[in-house]
Amino acid sequence: MKNPGFRNIGLIGRLGSNKVVETLKRLMRYLGEHNYQVIIESRTAEVILGHGCQEADLKMLAEICDLVIVVGGDGSLLGAARAMAKTGVPVLGVNRGRLGFLTDILPEKVEEKVAEVLAGKYTSERRFLLDAEVYREGELIGSADGLNDVVLHPGKSARMIEFDLHIEGQFVYNQRSDGLIVATPTGSTAYALSGGGPIMHPKLDALVLVPMFPHTLSSRPIVVDGNSEIKIFISGSNETYPHISCDGQTHLVTKPGDVLYIRKKSQKLKLIHPLGYDFYEICRTKLGWNSQHSNY
Amino acid sequence: MKNPGFRNIGLIGRLGSNKVVETLKRLMRYLGEHNYQVIIESRTAEVILGHGCQEADLKMLAEICDLVIVVGGDGSLLGAARAMAKTGVPVLGVNRGRLGFLTDILPEKVEEKVAEVLAGKYTSERRFLLDAEVYREGELIGSADGLNDVVLHPGKSARMIEFDLHIEGQFVYNQRSDGLIVATPTGSTAYALSGGGPIMHPKLDALVLVPMFPHTLSSRPIVVDGNSEIKIFISGSNETYPHISCDGQTHLVTKPGDVLYIRKKSQKLKLIHPLGYDFYEICRTKLGWNSQHSNY
Amino acid sequence: MKNPGFRNIGLIGRLGSNKVVETLKRLMRYLGEHNYQVIIESRTAEVILGHGCQEADLKMLAEICDLVIVVGGDGSLLGAARAMAKTGVPVLGVNRGRLGFLTDILPEKVEEKVAEVLAGKYTSERRFLLDAEVYREGELIGSADGLNDVVLHPGKSARMIEFDLHIEGQFVYNQRSDGLIVATPTGSTAYALSGGGPIMHPKLDALVLVPMFPHTLSSRPIVVDGNSEIKIFISGSNETYPHISCDGQTHLVTKPGDVLYIRKKSQKLKLIHPLGYDFYEICRTKLGWNSQHSNY
Amino acid sequence: MKNPGFRNIGLIGRLGSNKVVETLKRLMRYLGEHNYQVIIESRTAEVILGHGCQEADLKMLAEICDLVIVVGGDGSLLGAARAMAKTGVPVLGVNRGRLGFLTDILPEKVEEKVAEVLAGKYTSERRFLLDAEVYREGELIGSADGLNDVVLHPGKSARMIEFDLHIEGQFVYNQRSDGLIVATPTGSTAYALSGGGPIMHPKLDALVLVPMFPHTLSSRPIVVDGNSEIKIFISGSNETYPHISCDGQTHLVTKPGDVLYIRKKSQKLKLIHPLGYDFYEICRTKLGWNSQHSNY
Repeated sequence: MKNPGFRNIGLIGRLGSNKVVETLKRLMRYLGEHNYQVIIESRTAEVILGHGCQEADLKMLAEICDLVIVVGGDGSLLGAARAMAKTGVPVLGVNRGRLGFLTDILPEKVEEKVAEVLAGKYTSERRFLLDAEVYREGELIGSADGLNDVVLHPGKSARMIEFDLHIEGQFVYNQRSDGLIVATPTGSTAYALSGGGPIMHPKLDALVLVPMFPHTLSSRPIVVDGNSEIKIFISGSNETYPHISCDGQTHLVTKPGDVLYIRKKSQKLKLIHPLGYDFYEICRTKLGWNSQHSNY
Repeated sequence: MKNPGFRNIGLIGRLGSNKVVETLKRLMRYLGEHNYQVIIESRTAEVILGHGCQEADLKMLAEICDLVIVVGGDGSLLGAARAMAKTGVPVLGVNRGRLGFLTDILPEKVEEKVAEVLAGKYTSERRFLLDAEVYREGELIGSADGLNDVVLHPGKSARMIEFDLHIEGQFVYNQRSDGLIVATPTGSTAYALSGGGPIMHPKLDALVLVPMFPHTLSSRPIVVDGNSEIKIFISGSNETYPHISCDGQTHLVTKPGDVLYIRKKSQKLKLIHPLGYDFYEICRTKLGWNSQHSNY
Repeated sequence: MKNPGFRNIGLIGRLGSNKVVETLKRLMRYLGEHNYQVIIESRTAEVILGHGCQEADLKMLAEICDLVIVVGGDGSLLGAARAMAKTGVPVLGVNRGRLGFLTDILPEKVEEKVAEVLAGKYTSERRFLLDAEVYREGELIGSADGLNDVVLHPGKSARMIEFDLHIEGQFVYNQRSDGLIVATPTGSTAYALSGGGPIMHPKLDALVLVPMFPHTLSSRPIVVDGNSEIKIFISGSNETYPHISCDGQTHLVTKPGDVLYIRKKSQKLKLIHPLGYDFYEICRTKLGWNSQHSNY
Repeated sequence: MKNPGFRNIGLIGRLGSNKVVETLKRLMRYLGEHNYQVIIESRTAEVILGHGCQEADLKMLAEICDLVIVVGGDGSLLGAARAMAKTGVPVLGVNRGRLGFLTDILPEKVEEKVAEVLAGKYTSERRFLLDAEVYREGELIGSADGLNDVVLHPGKSARMIEFDLHIEGQFVYNQRSDGLIVATPTGSTAYALSGGGPIMHPKLDALVLVPMFPHTLSSRPIVVDGNSEIKIFISGSNETYPHISCDGQTHLVTKPGDVLYIRKKSQKLKLIHPLGYDFYEICRTKLGWNSQHSNY
């Protein structure tokens, strides 16, 4: 059993949910009683009246904490992940209702499970992120990062875009479609899965490229090495300005003629799980892989 | 062999293409030489200098013509179809390059094939359209129609929407997804096919509902009778204003709480084909159903 | 409310299940107490000691009964359906555990629901079956029928077969694959659904053709009118003898050069449901269409 | 440029094809004229009358050759690959008609391309194989290996099997389906692709598991690290004896209660390509990824 040396504990909560606030308060009380230093993320702090704790923005939180606990859904953890990956501070997720792929502590067990983690009873893994960079006439005009995915799409839905895809410098295809999802193993169970992509085990060092509603019916998801450089030329023929979304949260706008690069980020997210974490159990629970659901 | 009595021939062309203008001029010359009355659609007329023919807008064209010829791609015919269905004037499609599902005369054979059609050597079929109506607090606030499909989508792409689907008054499911495609047999080979829907033979009296990137992986395309009433409640929980597109061309904006009805339109499009029209041949050509393309 | 005039009630049970025997005994007791004439299918009768009822084979049952009750799963009803369709005797399904698409009375409610049906409180619908006929050098060499589907497959699995498909006399394609599923709406929620076909509402008059592991990736399920004649040429190049299965139960063996015809059968199955039957509710229950199962 | 030191050249041909014999004769003539030692695989030798070369079986060929050239399709190379991997002798594939994923020299260019390879102008890559081992009551009762895939299937097609899947010791799911495909990147473009699996780049160190017609609709392809141990329990409830096929060529029969292990083989195939080999170009050619085939 490790002595993890967790002293300064950051707290981040999904906004707009009473259940989240309640769980945050339980956590604050528990951590205070056990003499941990609690730092609350600034926007989260606004909804917790009279908390009496230190506040810090996401960037500061990443620098001063030994552990950051996110209360909410997988989406809340995605939002924090990009900031936390910069310093490598470990992140632990508490879900607000049902299990998530990233937030795997249930609220009713929050003290018990957090106590175990603080005592060193946990497993940790490193999840890689993606960097997206847009170049216009050779100059970088925007960048963003994502833990789940980088999605190229038309901005307005149900429109077609056209682009050329290159992987590791090799031309793959010219495609007309609703867009392209480039997902990490972490993201393979989210949007990419709804789009027909495969599930990738979190430990796999790979990317999956999932075409969205491609006009060529033989286009299929492609899985490549995680270190591959993805290069996408936004065709000059596009009548719209294709957009780029990372984790469905940050956005870049391209112009016909722009070039989008997607590469693995150098920093990784350190994700903490209570002992007994089982990726496939979460798949079974969330995806309904049990014999009761069977078409015949 | 019929005597079709085609005297007044309407011409519509896809804008922005020199090839289309060239084919239109060949058609005008041929029809003039054979003493047909040519009426050109007003916007098309703008790009044909000194044509010396009568002009009319789409609505008028539908009323005064015995036959309307559309030069362009399937998309151009879709645009004309909704107007032409109102009076039932027959429509013939000339493609600008390669075969389409709706535009099945190639430009190099335009005089030969049009001559055959004018001489009564053709087959015709009726294709049904869909009406989309949006109700807000019981009042109709917008409507549109489509030959291919009615698509409910988030407006901005890569966002989720939530809705309740009812078919013929029966609750089907609550769905969170990128949207829903409701397609006619005509539309089943277009957007719905890219989304994983089945091909439906044009003569089938059916609709297909194709979920777009559904969160529930067991959601599948559903095929129902063509006369079914589709009712969609836009859930109050939506943070965006879902949009409705018909044939990717006309658009309505909904609000959370709105109700969308989709039903078969009473008027149908009368679509003309040269003799020898073969739906499956077009599938083979356009979709690449030939043994050369085989993964192993 | 109808007076259905049900007097002679046939009973068929799935073999090899104690639960089924128990439900059959409950049914026999209930029907006997209410002065119905009970006739037990001969093979079912062998597992019910000392039942004291009349026995009859499937063919006779179809002729002398006013109603036939099948206890088991959807598979048991499929086995009875082909015989019962010949005379049009109505069939009611009792499931042995969880709801089926065809057997929609739960065992714990068997007396209550059967009483309602016997009192005329039920809905009925007609489900069509398929006939499969194999011709060799112009002569009929075998035939079979199915309520769910007719499946052409290699006999041994993971082998390829090659065939030419024609629908209503029109050539569709030459295909190399693991086979082809031709399914009715009833069968669309069974094997065809696992193979990627759409769900078809039971009232739709249509067939779906689902290619199994096709070598041409753009091959997709095709939905055609229920009265279409499907003709399949077994290519001379096949090294194996492709098989034909109907409802996964009856089997025919073909030779290269044979021709398979699939057509709607003239007789239909009369299927009885308790009031409140809801096709989409069964979809939700069996397929797991509820918001708890969601990948994100 | 390397001096590859190729002196003893083995030749293997697909049986039953005149085109293959013709290409083999061209190769023998060319290699003889340039003073290479030609050794012909024994069964191939039977169809080449009066060849005057040394003969050897596959095992011997793998030991005495510096290079083995396979003439045929991808299937022929698969058959040779398992033997050649044992010694690591490099293998070069010549296709008999159109490009294959593994056999990427066209017959009309055979002398030119083979000359380049013999002169050291080539690229080589290592492709891993899979070992399948069946245990019954703790004892190994059979094993086989495959370059493309190991497929668990019912033996007779259109039957269901039931099994428990474990990956790296973790329980994944109990599944009822037509079977499971476990494919290497090499096999990801073959049977697994027809079954809905993703394309995996040949350099990726991963396996894909593709469920075949699963009863649970949310079952999806899973991609895991190439070194993962796959363990499959054949459920006791199976009424048939499930089979195991490797590359569709070798076969094992299991009994309910058996355990199947699938692991990466220690030896790899050394596959040779002429310069300019481009994986994605072969995808474009074989799968029809070009803009002419587009549904709309």
